[in-house]
Amino acid sequence: MPDYQAPLRDLRFVMDEMLDFPAHYARLPGGEEASPDVVNAILAEGARFTREVLLPLNQSGDREGCLLEGGEVKAPKGFKEAYRQYVEGGWPSLSAEPEFGGQGLPHSLGMVLSEMICATNLAWGMYPGLSHGAADALRHHGSDEQKASYLTKLVEGVWTGTMCLTEPHCGTDLGLIKTRAVPTGDGAYEISGTKIFISAGEHDLAENIVHLVLAKLPDAPEGSKGISLFVVPKFLPDADGNPGERNGVTCGSLEHKMGIHGNATCVMNFDAARGFLVGPPNKGLACMFTMMNVARIGVGIQGLGLMEASFQNALAYARDRLQMRALSGAREPAKPADPIIVHPDVRRMLLTQKAFAEGGRMLVMYTAKLVDLVEHDQDAAERERAEALLGLLTPVVKAFLTEVGFEATNEGVQVLGGHGFIREWGMEQFVRDARITRLYEGTTGVQALDLLGRKVLMSQGETLKLFTKEIHKFCQAKAGDPALKEFIEPLAKLNAEWGELTMEVGMKAMHDREEVGAASVDFLMYSGYVTLAYLWARAAKQAQRSLGGDEDAFYKAKLDTARFFYQRLLPRTRAHAQMIQAGAASLMTISAEDFGLGFEI
Amino acid sequence: MPDYQAPLRDLRFVMDEMLDFPAHYARLPGGEEASPDVVNAILAEGARFTREVLLPLNQSGDREGCLLEGGEVKAPKGFKEAYRQYVEGGWPSLSAEPEFGGQGLPHSLGMVLSEMICATNLAWGMYPGLSHGAADALRHHGSDEQKASYLTKLVEGVWTGTMCLTEPHCGTDLGLIKTRAVPTGDGAYEISGTKIFISAGEHDLAENIVHLVLAKLPDAPEGSKGISLFVVPKFLPDADGNPGERNGVTCGSLEHKMGIHGNATCVMNFDAARGFLVGPPNKGLACMFTMMNVARIGVGIQGLGLMEASFQNALAYARDRLQMRALSGAREPAKPADPIIVHPDVRRMLLTQKAFAEGGRMLVMYTAKLVDLVEHDQDAAERERAEALLGLLTPVVKAFLTEVGFEATNEGVQVLGGHGFIREWGMEQFVRDARITRLYEGTTGVQALDLLGRKVLMSQGETLKLFTKEIHKFCQAKAGDPALKEFIEPLAKLNAEWGELTMEVGMKAMHDREEVGAASVDFLMYSGYVTLAYLWARAAKQAQRSLGGDEDAFYKAKLDTARFFYQRLLPRTRAHAQMIQAGAASLMTISAEDFGLGFEI
Repeated sequence: MPDYQAPLRDLRFVMDEMLDFPAHYARLPGGEEASPDVVNAILAEGARFTREVLLPLNQSGDREGCLLEGGEVKAPKGFKEAYRQYVEGGWPSLSAEPEFGGQGLPHSLGMVLSEMICATNLAWGMYPGLSHGAADALRHHGSDEQKASYLTKLVEGVWTGTMCLTEPHCGTDLGLIKTRAVPTGDGAYEISGTKIFISAGEHDLAENIVHLVLAKLPDAPEGSKGISLFVVPKFLPDADGNPGERNGVTCGSLEHKMGIHGNATCVMNFDAARGFLVGPPNKGLACMFTMMNVARIGVGIQGLGLMEASFQNALAYARDRLQMRALSGAREPAKPADPIIVHPDVRRMLLTQKAFAEGGRMLVMYTAKLVDLVEHDQDAAERERAEALLGLLTPVVKAFLTEVGFEATNEGVQVLGGHGFIREWGMEQFVRDARITRLYEGTTGVQALDLLGRKVLMSQGETLKLFTKEIHKFCQAKAGDPALKEFIEPLAKLNAEWGELTMEVGMKAMHDREEVGAASVDFLMYSGYVTLAYLWARAAKQAQRSLGGDEDAFYKAKLDTARFFYQRLLPRTRAHAQMIQAGAASLMTISAEDFGLGFEI
Repeated sequence: MPDYQAPLRDLRFVMDEMLDFPAHYARLPGGEEASPDVVNAILAEGARFTREVLLPLNQSGDREGCLLEGGEVKAPKGFKEAYRQYVEGGWPSLSAEPEFGGQGLPHSLGMVLSEMICATNLAWGMYPGLSHGAADALRHHGSDEQKASYLTKLVEGVWTGTMCLTEPHCGTDLGLIKTRAVPTGDGAYEISGTKIFISAGEHDLAENIVHLVLAKLPDAPEGSKGISLFVVPKFLPDADGNPGERNGVTCGSLEHKMGIHGNATCVMNFDAARGFLVGPPNKGLACMFTMMNVARIGVGIQGLGLMEASFQNALAYARDRLQMRALSGAREPAKPADPIIVHPDVRRMLLTQKAFAEGGRMLVMYTAKLVDLVEHDQDAAERERAEALLGLLTPVVKAFLTEVGFEATNEGVQVLGGHGFIREWGMEQFVRDARITRLYEGTTGVQALDLLGRKVLMSQGETLKLFTKEIHKFCQAKAGDPALKEFIEPLAKLNAEWGELTMEVGMKAMHDREEVGAASVDFLMYSGYVTLAYLWARAAKQAQRSLGGDEDAFYKAKLDTARFFYQRLLPRTRAHAQMIQAGAASLMTISAEDFGLGFEI
C-alpha cells in the first residue's frame, strides 16, 4: 500500500523562507490569528488526519466504488466515518468567515490542507471539495436568507455542495443548456432538466446536499447570456433550518469511470425541483465563474497532491529495488545488485516528479497568497493587482499542474516497471485519478483559451506584463550574482521571449482569430514552464543564501533540483516556442472530411 | 462502443506506393505467393475478422476480466470461440515455414494483421501473440524432436506459447533468477521456481500451453552467463503427440492490473515440472533474445494499433459533437453550435494522433521489410545489413511507438472531454491498455540503453551510419526539388545533428559511463522523431508525385499531415537535443538520501 508523509519541511521552505508567509499573515486583516505556531499546529494535525484517516481508505475506495440503490448512493466503506471526523475536527470551517461560523483563517491555509487531502484520497476529497465553490457562490451572490439557510451549514460541513452545470449535450458550451426554471409565483422556481457528471451529486456522508444549478428562465435570451443560477437543496430546510421535505432532485445513475471510483459521479434528474434564484436573473454565468475559479485552482492542487504521492512511493521503491549494476561500477557490491536509484534514467524520472511537485507547490502557494490578498487586502490597488495576477495564473495552475501531474504520476508507474501496472502497488491509481484533472472544470484546451484569449490578449498583454515585470525586476536585482547566473540568465531571456511570442500571436490574431486557438495550448505550457522557472530561481536564491548552516543537505538538494529543472525540463520551451509560432495553417488546411481517408471506405 | 475500420487505403499507400512491397515480395524467396491479389484478399479478410469477431469482445473482456478457479483460468466470454475461428481461418500459420505446417507467406504480412488485432482487442491478441516468440525460439534453437513435438502445434495454433522470464525479485536483471533446473538423468530436467507477469500463462483457449522458461542449471555460472532456456509444456505430449500427462506447472494467481483485463497475467509455479533444454546449456539469454526481439516489435505494433483505434473514434466524435462556434465565425449556422472539429486545438489533437499513427505504420512496415530480408534474403551482405538496421530500429519501434502511443490514446480521451473518462465510450480503455506497452518486454529506459549503448555506441556508430547514410542519400537526391524543400531541408539538418549528438555522447561516455544512461531516453525519443521525419518526407514525396489523379484529396491530406508533423511535432527534437547534451551531472549530483528531505522527518 502506498505511504505518504505531508511534505512539511518543504512547505516551511516555500511558505516561510521563500514567500514570507509569516509577514504576509501578519499584515493580512484576520491573518494575525495565523501565527507561525498556529500554522504549524494546523499543518501537523492535517498531516496526521490525512495520513491516518484518509490514506487507508484510498485503495479500498477505488476497488469498492459507489453503490446506487433505491435512489440512494452509498460511498465506499469508511468514507462516512472519515467525513464525520473531518467535520468534528473543524476542517470545513477553517478559512470561512466568522460571520457564517468560520474560523476566519486565511484561504491559503485551506489550500495547503487541500494538497494533503488530494495526495491521500482524491475521491474522498471531492465530497467536501465541491462545497467550497458552492459556499463561495452563495457568499458572493446569495441573499441574506440564502446565506443563513445554506452557507452556515456548508461552512459547518454538515451539508455538502455541488455544481450542476454540464448536460448530456453540453459541457464547455453552457449556452446550450436545456434545464428550465419556471417561477412558482411564491418567489421560488420549479427546476426541470438533466445534469450529468455531477461529482458528489448524491451520497451518504452528509445530511443534506446543496445543489447550485444553472438553468434558463422562460423568457431568457439565447445562449450564455440567458443562464441563471439557482440553489436547489436535496431536502428543503424546515422552519428550524433542518432538512425537511424531500425535493424533486434525484440521482438517476452513476457513471463508471477510469478513476476516482470512490467519488459518486452522478446523473442528476431535476423534476420540478424547488429552487431559488441566486444573484440576478440571466447573470448565472458570472456567478458560476465565482465557483469555477475556486474549483479550477482546486483541480490544480489535485495535480500537485497526486504527483507528490506518486513521487514519494516511487522514491521508496527505487531505493529498495535491486536490479543491475551501475554502469560505472557496482555501488553496493555486497548486495546481489544495486538499488535502481543509482541508474541515471531512474533518477531522471524521480527528479522530474520532484521538480514538478516542489515547483508546483511554489506555484500553488504563490497563487494562494494572491487569493488571500484578493479576499482581504485593505488596499484597493493591491487587491486589483492581485486579482489580475490571480486571473492570469488560474488557468496555468489548473492546466499546467494537471498536465505535468499526469506526466509525473506516469513516471511513478514507470519507475516501478511492470509492478507499476499492478493495482496492489497503488501507483496506477494515481494515474487513473490524475487523468480526470486534465478534463473537468474545463479541459486544458479551455484553460488555454482562457489564458491566451481572455487573460492575455483581451487585456492587450497588460495582465501578462504585470507578471513579466515582476520577473524582470527579480532578474535585474540578481543580475550581478555569479552564484545565480545559471538561473537568472536563461530566465531573463525566456521572460523577454514570453512577451515577444505574445505580441507575435496577437498580431497574427488580428487577421485570423483561429491563430489564438492554434497557439493556445503550447502558449499555456510555455507559460507554465517560465512561471516555474521564475519560482525555481527564487528557490535557488533562497537555498543559496541559507547554505552554511546545519541544513546544508536540504538546501543543496533544493539547488540540485533547481538545476535539474533548468537543464532537463526547461528546454521543452524550445519546442513550445516553435509550435506557438507554427501558425494556424498547419492545423486548419485539412478538411474535416479528409481526416479519415486512410481508413474510411 | 468504439468502432474500427482497418486502414486499408493507408496500408496500400505505405506498402504499395511508398515502400514498394509488390517488388519486395516478388524478389523474396517464398514471397512470390504474396501477389497483390493475395495480399489484398488477406488484408480484407483480416479487416473483417478483427472488426466482426474481435472488436465486439474488447469492452466486454475488459469489464469481465479473467477468472481463476481450481487452478484453471477462464478467459472472458467469447474469447475461446474467437480463438477457434482464428485457428480455423488459418491465421496462426500465415507466415510460418511450410516444413512446420505454415503457409510460408512473408512475416511482414503477419505484422499488418497484428496491427488490426491490437487495434480491435489487445487483451485477446496477447493469447496468440506470445506464441510467435515461443515458436521463433524453438525454430532457431530447438532440437528436431522439439520442433516436431511443439513447433507444429504452435504453428497450427492448437497450442499456445508463453515466455517465462520475470521472477518476483527480478525483471530487467535476469541474471538474478532463482528458478532451478535439475537433470533427471533421462535427458530431461526438473524445473522449480516461481515466475510472475506471465501473459497467457494459463487459459482455456487452447488444449495445451508451451512455456519457454529461463532457469539455472546446478553448476551454472553466476549472473546472466548462467541462464538456460527450457521448454515446459502444461501437458506432456503423449506417444501420438497429443496432450498427455499434466505437468507440474500451475497458475498460482492472477494479477489485478490497470488494463488488458481480458488477458490472464499469471503467477506461474513450477514444481519439479518436467522440462527440456532448448539450445546449449547456459546460453539461454541468447535464445531468449530471439523471442524478445520478435516480442518487442510486436509491442511497438500494439502501440500503433491502439493509436489508430483511438484516432478513428476521436475523429468520429469530433465531427459529431456540437460545442461552441468557430472563433472566426459560425461554420454551421443552422445548428445550435459547430462540430468541435472546427476548433484548432481539437484539430491539433486529432492531427497528433493521425501523424503518429500513419507515421508509426510507415515505421512498422519499413521494419517489417527488414524482418523479411533477415529471414529470407539470398544475399548474405544484404541480410547482414538488414539485420543491423533491424537491430537499430527494434528499440525505436518498441519504445517510441509505445511512448507516442500512450500520448496519442490520451489525446483521444482529451478530444471527448469528460466523456473520454467514462468507460462506456471506450476511449479510456485504450489508455489503460496502452500503459503496459511502455513497460513490458523491457521498459522504455531499457530500450533506450539497448539503442544508445548496445546498438549505436558499441558499433562505434557504424550501425547508425547505415541508416543516416540512407537518409543522407534520400536528401541529396531530392535536394533540388522545390516542392519538397520544406521537408528535405530540416531533415538533412536533423540527420547531421543526429550523428553529431551521438559523437558528443560517445566522447563523454569514454570518461563516464553514466553519460550513456543520462542521455539514453532523450536520445531514443530524438531518434524516433528523426526516423519518422525521414519516413514522412518519403510519404510527402510519394504524395506529391501522385497529385493530379482522382485521389487528390487523399494525397493532399497526406501532405497536410506531413506538414503538421514537421511543424508541430518535430520541434520537440529541440528539447530532446538539449537534454541529450545536458550531461550526467544534472542527474547524479543529488544523493539517494537527499531526494526525500522535503517530506521525510
